[in-house]
Amino acid sequence: MNLGADIALAHRLADAARAAILPHYRTGLTSERKADASPVTLADRAAEEAMRRILKAECPRDAIHGEEFGAEAGSSGRTWVLDPIDGTTSFLIGRPIFGTLIALVVDGWPVLGVIDQPVLGERWLGATGQPTLLNGAPVRTRPCRELGDATLATTGPHYFDDHDGAHFMGLAAKTDHRRMVMGGDCYNYALLASGHVDIVCEANLKLHDYAALVPVVEGAGGTMCDWNGDPLHAASSGHVLALGDPARLDDVVEALACHH
Amino acid sequence: MNLGADIALAHRLADAARAAILPHYRTGLTSERKADASPVTLADRAAEEAMRRILKAECPRDAIHGEEFGAEAGSSGRTWVLDPIDGTTSFLIGRPIFGTLIALVVDGWPVLGVIDQPVLGERWLGATGQPTLLNGAPVRTRPCRELGDATLATTGPHYFDDHDGAHFMGLAAKTDHRRMVMGGDCYNYALLASGHVDIVCEANLKLHDYAALVPVVEGAGGTMCDWNGDPLHAASSGHVLALGDPARLDDVVEALACHH
Repeated sequence: MNLGADIALAHRLADAARAAILPHYRTGLTSERKADASPVTLADRAAEEAMRRILKAECPRDAIHGEEFGAEAGSSGRTWVLDPIDGTTSFLIGRPIFGTLIALVVDGWPVLGVIDQPVLGERWLGATGQPTLLNGAPVRTRPCRELGDATLATTGPHYFDDHDGAHFMGLAAKTDHRRMVMGGDCYNYALLASGHVDIVCEANLKLHDYAALVPVVEGAGGTMCDWNGDPLHAASSGHVLALGDPARLDDVVEALACHH
Repeated sequence: MNLGADIALAHRLADAARAAILPHYRTGLTSERKADASPVTLADRAAEEAMRRILKAECPRDAIHGEEFGAEAGSSGRTWVLDPIDGTTSFLIGRPIFGTLIALVVDGWPVLGVIDQPVLGERWLGATGQPTLLNGAPVRTRPCRELGDATLATTGPHYFDDHDGAHFMGLAAKTDHRRMVMGGDCYNYALLASGHVDIVCEANLKLHDYAALVPVVEGAGGTMCDWNGDPLHAASSGHVLALGDPARLDDVVEALACHH
């Protein structure tokens, strides 16, 4: 399978999203919530519209599944899955650790994924059969010989219900939990791909939250699966695991199975 | 009081810390813990040594209170309080939301504070009687009319014991908790000074963790105190509150007093 043209297109999509997002960064100077006018809503919509315009012009037969504007059917068997701003809380408070997620899903499997951080100008790109690149340079996950040495990341405990939280704490207790990482959303997976984080464990993720992460993590030598160690697919429960070192998979699944 | 010379010195300290820290950023490519050789330990020590060298040469009579190398007595009644890397977890995983903290404490009160983010090249500087500056430009906290609209930040729930955690959850429940911010350390206070976060609430902070934050937050129009609303001082319990809008202080203290 030749992904070259799709990779070039994914770069253009990410470029367009960046240009749409940056003017809204750090512009929210009130705590009042106005659903239709918050900077993150404006940026989210502008970025997804910019990407959809390009896709409709260049691949009108491809389906689009966007976080903001929903699904648009296609006839090619290919779907572009878009999340213009993953990590809206970080965006809203001006932390440059959110990201734009772009995935190309073919026959139900993400074959291409982009995690783009507009402020830092960092772009991770993964594609089936190719090494993951950060701004064009290959990155690798790091080895993790002992679960007790592992750095674990999750966006926040308030994303788990009580049941999931108890299992998560079973895993956290067996890692280097003094260094547990909170916050971060997609950026944690990017850092895992670059060899700085060992495990990301989250619940309630939707397809647009994780489709782009899979090629990035796997092209860097890591693995992604659900909390049972089974492959992720569109109908997954949203319980997502990413491991930098696939050799720790059994340890992680076992630790997650324990209530704490 | 003329702080001009001390402000210039604080900039040179922050410059020296930046130069010492950046070579170690994103260099940790193993999950193994080796206490004496981790990138954060190397960077922490190099940065504090660089700052101490400057202080000993330029103000030998000032005391130094550093996070890495402890206290050194002085005879001037002035103490430089240094935390070369606040947010070691973020540093270790390559998230650019840690900071170097530099405070000048005179007669027990921090009159000058710096929060410096080396990777992003962002430096917040606050000094008694002057507006807080981010890279030379004045910043202001934002108004917050309703506690229910407030964005609350904290580094992580694992920093609270059960008792503190119950009080914290009492506050969290009354804020816009769907947007609660996790992770961030000193960077949350810097973002509060710039008007992107409304409340930061933490426990177990030490003098070197919060001395530099006070002039930054207060010079931007915010306020800092303990969980009872009382002024922070060196003997405080480490329960630290920062508010962008001082008008919400009574609401926050009342919410913290409720167990959840």
